[in-house]
Amino acid sequence: MPVFLDTTDPNFETGFAALLSAKREDSPDVDDTVAAIISEVRARGDAALIDYTARFDRLSLTPETLAISRDEVDAEIARVSSEDRAALELAAGRIRTYHARQMPEDARWTDETGAELGWRWGPVSAAGLYVPGGLASYPSSVLMNAIPAKVAGVGRLAICVPAPDGVLNPLVLLAARLSGVDEIYRIGGAQAIAALAYGTETIAPVDKITGPGNAYVAAAKRRVFGKVGIDMIAGPSEILVIADGEADPDWIALDLMSQAEHDESAQSILITPDAAYGRAVASAVDARLETLERRAIAGASWRDFGAIITCRDLDEAAQLSNRVAPEHLELCVADPEALSEKITHAGAIFLSHWTPEAIGDYVGGPNHVLPTARSARFSSGLSVMDFLKRTTLARMTPEALRAIGPAAEALAASESLEAHGLSVTARLRMLNE
Amino acid sequence: MPVFLDTTDPNFETGFAALLSAKREDSPDVDDTVAAIISEVRARGDAALIDYTARFDRLSLTPETLAISRDEVDAEIARVSSEDRAALELAAGRIRTYHARQMPEDARWTDETGAELGWRWGPVSAAGLYVPGGLASYPSSVLMNAIPAKVAGVGRLAICVPAPDGVLNPLVLLAARLSGVDEIYRIGGAQAIAALAYGTETIAPVDKITGPGNAYVAAAKRRVFGKVGIDMIAGPSEILVIADGEADPDWIALDLMSQAEHDESAQSILITPDAAYGRAVASAVDARLETLERRAIAGASWRDFGAIITCRDLDEAAQLSNRVAPEHLELCVADPEALSEKITHAGAIFLSHWTPEAIGDYVGGPNHVLPTARSARFSSGLSVMDFLKRTTLARMTPEALRAIGPAAEALAASESLEAHGLSVTARLRMLNE
Repeated sequence: MPVFLDTTDPNFETGFAALLSAKREDSPDVDDTVAAIISEVRARGDAALIDYTARFDRLSLTPETLAISRDEVDAEIARVSSEDRAALELAAGRIRTYHARQMPEDARWTDETGAELGWRWGPVSAAGLYVPGGLASYPSSVLMNAIPAKVAGVGRLAICVPAPDGVLNPLVLLAARLSGVDEIYRIGGAQAIAALAYGTETIAPVDKITGPGNAYVAAAKRRVFGKVGIDMIAGPSEILVIADGEADPDWIALDLMSQAEHDESAQSILITPDAAYGRAVASAVDARLETLERRAIAGASWRDFGAIITCRDLDEAAQLSNRVAPEHLELCVADPEALSEKITHAGAIFLSHWTPEAIGDYVGGPNHVLPTARSARFSSGLSVMDFLKRTTLARMTPEALRAIGPAAEALAASESLEAHGLSVTARLRMLNE
Repeated sequence: MPVFLDTTDPNFETGFAALLSAKREDSPDVDDTVAAIISEVRARGDAALIDYTARFDRLSLTPETLAISRDEVDAEIARVSSEDRAALELAAGRIRTYHARQMPEDARWTDETGAELGWRWGPVSAAGLYVPGGLASYPSSVLMNAIPAKVAGVGRLAICVPAPDGVLNPLVLLAARLSGVDEIYRIGGAQAIAALAYGTETIAPVDKITGPGNAYVAAAKRRVFGKVGIDMIAGPSEILVIADGEADPDWIALDLMSQAEHDESAQSILITPDAAYGRAVASAVDARLETLERRAIAGASWRDFGAIITCRDLDEAAQLSNRVAPEHLELCVADPEALSEKITHAGAIFLSHWTPEAIGDYVGGPNHVLPTARSARFSSGLSVMDFLKRTTLARMTPEALRAIGPAAEALAASESLEAHGLSVTARLRMLNE
C-alpha cells in the first residue's frame, strides 16, 4: 500500500516531511575496493583491466580485444530488427535536433571605456561514457549521453560497456554508431572509470566522464572527480503527477508504474484535488500490478515509496510539488500551461495527459538524464552545456586602463595584494609619462 | 630559482610533464573532524554554532547576535574611505553589467509533428556564500560570488563570514551591501557550511553554497554536496603568460608575482620564444622579490612552482598552454586575437599587455572565480548559470503522440520496460478507437 495523505489532515505535514526525507538509497560502502581497483589500473594499465574483466565478467581479453572492432560492431548491429533500428533512428534524430538548439552563443562587445569584453565556448576535447551491462544496459541512455557530447563538438568520445560472458547488446552498439561514438571498449565497473580517467597503454585518458552505473561505478566517479569532470551521481528515479481527474485513471497508473518498474527505490507520487480520483488511480495501479512483467520491482517501489496526496486545489498541488522538486513532473490537467507557471523546481515537465513521461525517456527530444533526490532545486538535466566550457575574454586599451585601473589599485591595496596593484601601477605610469 | 625549460632540449618533455603533474596542494585530512562538526550542528543547531564560534573565533555569541544587524553593517561601512567605496562601486557596476549579459534565454517551439518542446530557466531559491576571515577575507570575492547570484534572481542570499575576536572587515560588509546580500552571519568554518546546508533555529537552509575557504570549509562543502549544490573546490591560483618580448619585462614580472603572492602553492609560468627576454623577466622578478611586501610567499611559490619556458614560436606556445589549461592566461603579444584563436583550454584570457591579470581580479567585469588545477579542460568559471537551473518542457498533441509514440513503444520493449510502453499504448489505443 502506498501512503495516502490529505492536506486537510492535521497530521499532513508530518507525513509529507517523512515522504520528503525518505532514505531511498542504501549504497553499500565500496570505497576501499574501488580505491584499490583504481590504483591497480593506474599502476598496471591494460594488464589490470584484463585481470578484472576475467574475474568480474568471466571474459578473457587481450590488449587487442579490449576495444570492440568496427567489424564486430557491424556484425552485431546487423542483428537489430528494422523496427528497432527505425525507432532508434527516430529517437536519435529528435534528440539531436533538440540539443542542437542548446548551443550557447559566444559574446564580444566594447564598453564605454573602450575595453573589449566577452566570452567564448569550446568543447571538452575528449569524453568517456559509461554504459552499464546486463539488465540496465539501455540503448536510450547511450543516445542521451552521446548525442549532446557530439552536438557540443567533443572530438573523441569513448564508451565503456561491460560484456559479461562476452555478451554484447546490439542495440547499445547501434545507438553508439548512430550517435557518432569513436571508440567502444568491453570493460566495466570501477576499472573502466579508472581507465577513462587515467588512461592505459590502449585507452587514452578523457577529460569528462558521464553515464549511469552501479555503486562501484558511482564511487569510482566520485574518486576521479577533479582529475576529470563528471556528471551528476544519479539516484533512483522519481515521478510526480498532478492530475485534476480528467484523464483515464489507468493512464496515470501506468505513468506511475513506469518509474516504479525501474527500481525498488524509485518513487511515484500522485497529487490530486479529487480524493475519489486518487482512489481510482490506486485501484488501477493494483490491477496493473497483477500482470506487469516487472511487478515485483514496481510493487515494492509503490508499496515502500509510493504516495497519493489529496490537496485543496491545483495551487496547493504546485506548492507541494515545488517542495519535492521532482525529477519528472506530469501536469495532467485541463490547463497545464497555467499550472506550469507556478512550478519553480522540476527536472522535466510533461504537459497534458497526452504526454506520458515515457515519451521523454525515448523520443521526445529533451534529455532523460535529470536531477534526482530533490536536486532539481539547484541543478539541471544533462545538456550540451555539460560538454562545453566557457573562457572569459578581456582586452584593455590604454584609455580603458586609465579609466578603471585606479579602482583596481585601490582594491588591491585594501586586500594587501601589492603585486596586483603594482602590475597596474607600472602600466599607468608609462601612460602618464 | 624557477625551472627553466626549452622546448628544443631533448629532456623538455620530462621537465614539462613534471610541471604539469606537480602536486601543489597538500590538504590536511580533516574529514573526520568536519563530519563531527556537521553532525553537531545538525543535532544542536544554534547552540553548536555558538560553541564552535567561542572555541575557534574567541567570540561569544547568542542566537540574537549570530546575524550582523543592519545597524551594525551601517556603522561598519561608514568607516570605509570614499576612495575605497568608489572603487568597490565601480567594480560592482562592471561585474553586474558583464554578468547580466550571461542570462540565458528560455526556448519554446513546435516541431513538425505538432509537439511543443522547449526549456525554461529559473533561479535557485536560496544561496549561501562563504567568505573566509583573516588575511584571505577579500571584498572582491564577495562581489564575484554575490552579484551573479543576484543577477540570476536568487531570492535569498546569505553570507557567512567569521569574525575572529569579533573583528569585522568593513569592506566585506560594504561589498555585501552593494551586491544586495540579504543576511550576514558572523560564523565560519565547517560549522557555517553545515548551518547553510541543514539550517538551524536562526539560519534557514539554502539550496546552493559557493565561495572559497580553508581545508575545513572545502571538506564540509564536499560532504554537504548532494543535499545542496556547491561550486567548484578551488585549488591554488595559477597564471600562464605568453609573451613575444615587446612588453617591459617588469610588467610581466609583476603579473607573475600577482599570482605568486596569493599562496606558496600558486604557480606562475612564462612561455616566450625569446630566451633573452625570459632571462630579463627572471631578473625583473628577482628585483621585485627584494621589496614586495609578500615576498616570502611569492618567493616560495616562484622558487617551487615557477617556470620560464623558451619555445620555438607562438604556435608551440599555444599548444603548451593548452596542455596546462591555465586558470589565467595572458597573451602579451603583438596580435593577441590571432593567438587566442589557438587557445582551446583556459579559464580566462587577458589580451594584450595592457590587460594585467589583476584587472580581471577586480574591475574588468568577468568573474575571478575560475577553474584551477587543469580543470579548465572540462569546467568554466563562476557565472549566473551557477545560480540557475533548467527545466525541460514537452507537450504532445494526439497527432504528435501518434507520430512518435510507436517508436517509444518499440524502444521500451527492447529495454524490457513494459509499463513505459503501456503508458503510450493505452493512449494510442484510445486515439485509434
